[in-house]
Amino acid sequence: MRDFNILLFDQFEMLDAFGPAQIISGLTEEYRLRYLSRCGETVIGRQGIAVSTESIETANADSVWLIPGGMGTRTLVHDDGWIRAITNALQDASYILSVCTGSALLAKAGLLDGHRATSNKKAFEWVCTQGERVNWIRKARWVKDGKYYTSSGISAGIDMTLGFISDIHSNKAARTIAERNEYIWNDNPSNDPFA
Amino acid sequence: MRDFNILLFDQFEMLDAFGPAQIISGLTEEYRLRYLSRCGETVIGRQGIAVSTESIETANADSVWLIPGGMGTRTLVHDDGWIRAITNALQDASYILSVCTGSALLAKAGLLDGHRATSNKKAFEWVCTQGERVNWIRKARWVKDGKYYTSSGISAGIDMTLGFISDIHSNKAARTIAERNEYIWNDNPSNDPFA
Repeated sequence: MRDFNILLFDQFEMLDAFGPAQIISGLTEEYRLRYLSRCGETVIGRQGIAVSTESIETANADSVWLIPGGMGTRTLVHDDGWIRAITNALQDASYILSVCTGSALLAKAGLLDGHRATSNKKAFEWVCTQGERVNWIRKARWVKDGKYYTSSGISAGIDMTLGFISDIHSNKAARTIAERNEYIWNDNPSNDPFA
Repeated sequence: MRDFNILLFDQFEMLDAFGPAQIISGLTEEYRLRYLSRCGETVIGRQGIAVSTESIETANADSVWLIPGGMGTRTLVHDDGWIRAITNALQDASYILSVCTGSALLAKAGLLDGHRATSNKKAFEWVCTQGERVNWIRKARWVKDGKYYTSSGISAGIDMTLGFISDIHSNKAARTIAERNEYIWNDNPSNDPFA
């Protein structure tokens, strides 16, 4: 059993975080879902939801992490203390997944330097400025590079998380979860109709 | 500005509630999202998330409501006090939307009697037993009947909510929101690949 940590911060985008969480909850034998924030505060998302969290200091090594995007990222890229704390928390991660502008946070932390990555299409230029040594891929539903999975905007995180399960567990497991969620999986990471 | 109330209860299914909330948040000029529960308690979803809520007694008339499904519905159909409280809260609703087994709760309350409705396909037989005077439609991504919109399983709620926006506001608004969410909208309520 491995932890799947959903990192939350004020003004996170709801579906970026909870689409992947929904998909991962299909593997109850494999993952324990946790909702973490920098200090274990109650986090308020862009859709007004108030979620209780635990501190990132309670995270276990060898966890998988999911970093959502959202308007909150626009402030956090300028918050050096937050970026340092998150970089530290992520150092022992086994995999790091991001959705939408979540990749701007990873880029700002320097974690994506030399890696291929993507982000959503509405904020692409801004995201690129957060990591000039990242090989940004404009046309991709999601991109896998080493332990990093980065996805395009919002609902692309669901497709990416199914892709992650297909890679790490099995394609059959991913298909079973998509079916149980009555979700029409866009299973080709190069099929990006929004690029 | 109208309230869009997301009704939460323990063991609700995450994407049933938050997929529609994400879509509605694209109409910030039209709707205020609220998260309500019977007594305003902290609700724990099936995916382990703890969400702060307000009591249904604070709901305004003429609101739109979204009723998710999830394992919690299996208990709640036997909780007469809860069903009565919800029936009362919903009496002045302008529209009532449900996802997955959320329609079992509406059926149990008698609200769907004489109406066409659907639910998810994995629990369809059980849902039918909750409302024998409902005209249950087995093959449908979602069903509109009067002020009721009921959808199939989990991710179908996203398609239905876009359909609701298309009906009530405009097709252009629904398409713009789908695009902004980088979501491939299955816009045909009869196209149900999971039936």
